[in-house]
Amino acid sequence: MHIHLHSPADETLFALTPAQWQAALARSGVDAAGLHATFGADDASFAAAMRTAEALICDPAVILRQRDGGDAPLAAPHLKLVLATSAGLDRLAPYGWLPKGATLMNNRGTHGAKASEFALMALLMLASGIPAMVSDQRAGRWQKRWGHVLAGRHLVVIGLGTLGGGAAALAARHGMVITGVRANPAPHPACARVVATAALDSVLPEADMLLIACPLTPATRGLISRARLALLPRGAGVVNIGRGPVLDQDALCDALESGQLSGAVLDVFDPEPIPPGHRLWQVPNLIISPHTSADDPETYNAISLDIFLANLAAWRAGQALPNRFDPARGY
Amino acid sequence: MHIHLHSPADETLFALTPAQWQAALARSGVDAAGLHATFGADDASFAAAMRTAEALICDPAVILRQRDGGDAPLAAPHLKLVLATSAGLDRLAPYGWLPKGATLMNNRGTHGAKASEFALMALLMLASGIPAMVSDQRAGRWQKRWGHVLAGRHLVVIGLGTLGGGAAALAARHGMVITGVRANPAPHPACARVVATAALDSVLPEADMLLIACPLTPATRGLISRARLALLPRGAGVVNIGRGPVLDQDALCDALESGQLSGAVLDVFDPEPIPPGHRLWQVPNLIISPHTSADDPETYNAISLDIFLANLAAWRAGQALPNRFDPARGY
Repeated sequence: MHIHLHSPADETLFALTPAQWQAALARSGVDAAGLHATFGADDASFAAAMRTAEALICDPAVILRQRDGGDAPLAAPHLKLVLATSAGLDRLAPYGWLPKGATLMNNRGTHGAKASEFALMALLMLASGIPAMVSDQRAGRWQKRWGHVLAGRHLVVIGLGTLGGGAAALAARHGMVITGVRANPAPHPACARVVATAALDSVLPEADMLLIACPLTPATRGLISRARLALLPRGAGVVNIGRGPVLDQDALCDALESGQLSGAVLDVFDPEPIPPGHRLWQVPNLIISPHTSADDPETYNAISLDIFLANLAAWRAGQALPNRFDPARGY
Repeated sequence: MHIHLHSPADETLFALTPAQWQAALARSGVDAAGLHATFGADDASFAAAMRTAEALICDPAVILRQRDGGDAPLAAPHLKLVLATSAGLDRLAPYGWLPKGATLMNNRGTHGAKASEFALMALLMLASGIPAMVSDQRAGRWQKRWGHVLAGRHLVVIGLGTLGGGAAALAARHGMVITGVRANPAPHPACARVVATAALDSVLPEADMLLIACPLTPATRGLISRARLALLPRGAGVVNIGRGPVLDQDALCDALESGQLSGAVLDVFDPEPIPPGHRLWQVPNLIISPHTSADDPETYNAISLDIFLANLAAWRAGQALPNRFDPARGY
């Protein structure tokens, strides 16, 4: 089986290396006989590899570049498995580029540890009033502001996947009272209760803090609208580690400026990068993280390759692929 | 026994109230027979109460005002117990104001939960690169910065009391490898090892992060000097929740400006408030918290009064007072 690992030409920190692949193979217990890996970072090597490759592991940016805005299937007649090394593959829609017979996978699970710690940090920052303190600092103003511990505070988490579920587990350890919100309201061990997305409006008025950790799909685009932000109690805080367009960013800025919200920590935006001179750079009581909350360069590729090999083992055994991405559902 | 609870005249959020006292009494199990509490917030009521009070509970600011820069004992002939509602009583030195026969107590223990969460937050902020992100934000600059999880990182904690010990416990839960530093290097359950302050220079070169959580005493003033900051590896981060003068603040600013340190989160400064126009307001990769890391207004007085009543019970039983403050030692 020919497995091609392709990195964007300008990538350095996250480029996939033969050493990472060999280490992952050694960890995996997967039978390496018959596996043949190639590595590339330019268009010519991509085209050459796609003639024989049965599996492709690459950053979504590679696919965006190769499809070049079109919706025709990639010229990769033998491709069976594609792992795009991101959890949210919304950028790759529509999915006509995927060759017939190939299964698309994301790398959900890669981001759990880092994103969960980032989310816990963001909740602690809201509890301590750090966003307002940073605004004070920017103004050169010494202003006492008192915070509180997390215990007993109400957290609403949108999305209970790797990110939201992991964050909820850490927040619960600090005594937060957590309501989870997801499409299918199955119970979750870290949540006092889980409600369906349709019941969102009924739980927002109780949220001291709101954590957005869901993928961007047609169902979640604009989910946290201006009207829903207004349902949060005065002084609540917001964290977004999902995707920018889930949240009405302009309404959030208004609520921060008016004091309706006490603070926000955002890792995702619409658009990204935030353009120079954009309102977000000046809005008070906001912390901007440049969409890096979920990625730890020291572990990212290793975990992604572990995920690929676990899915390869399942595929060889004729089992369902744990990381199969459903283009219709969007995650 | 006459117990007087006095608050600064301008205090609102942290003023001690009869309702708080009654609630604490009810929680304590202390026999309330013979206990008589008075409350005051002005000089006349203080002077009147001190004629008969055997116990005083007050903010250190009250004592500073009543001693008025002098070193004569307060005119309080019956005073036996004084609880100053702060953990660090360095501001009250020298202690000639304390009437003969009265024992001074601090409220150490009050700050554990809030300060520990603040310290964990600060360590997570350093791991995610938030101080540098805030500098980017201030400059309107979108700049990818990658962080990492806490697991496996080396933390050196100066001081293992309520603050440092509590913070170490939370950091250990996230997999940090912790070296504690204190006067008496007894083992600590959260620390891989504990060394004496005299061995500080040998452990600083291994610290990814340094957390200062010790009281200000003659032995700790200037402890984290310019030379010691230079022992930290390039890219290390610093948190100070102890006292400002423990750290050479100017050397810290230099190290942040040069990039020798990657970031810092400071809750304490020298002087406080930070004066307008001070260098600290402009130094990059620094987060300023206005000395509020340890105080949760919703729980502060309740915990302080619980501490007083626990000490009162010990005093009635002829036992050592758990919160006795040793003026000679400084904590």
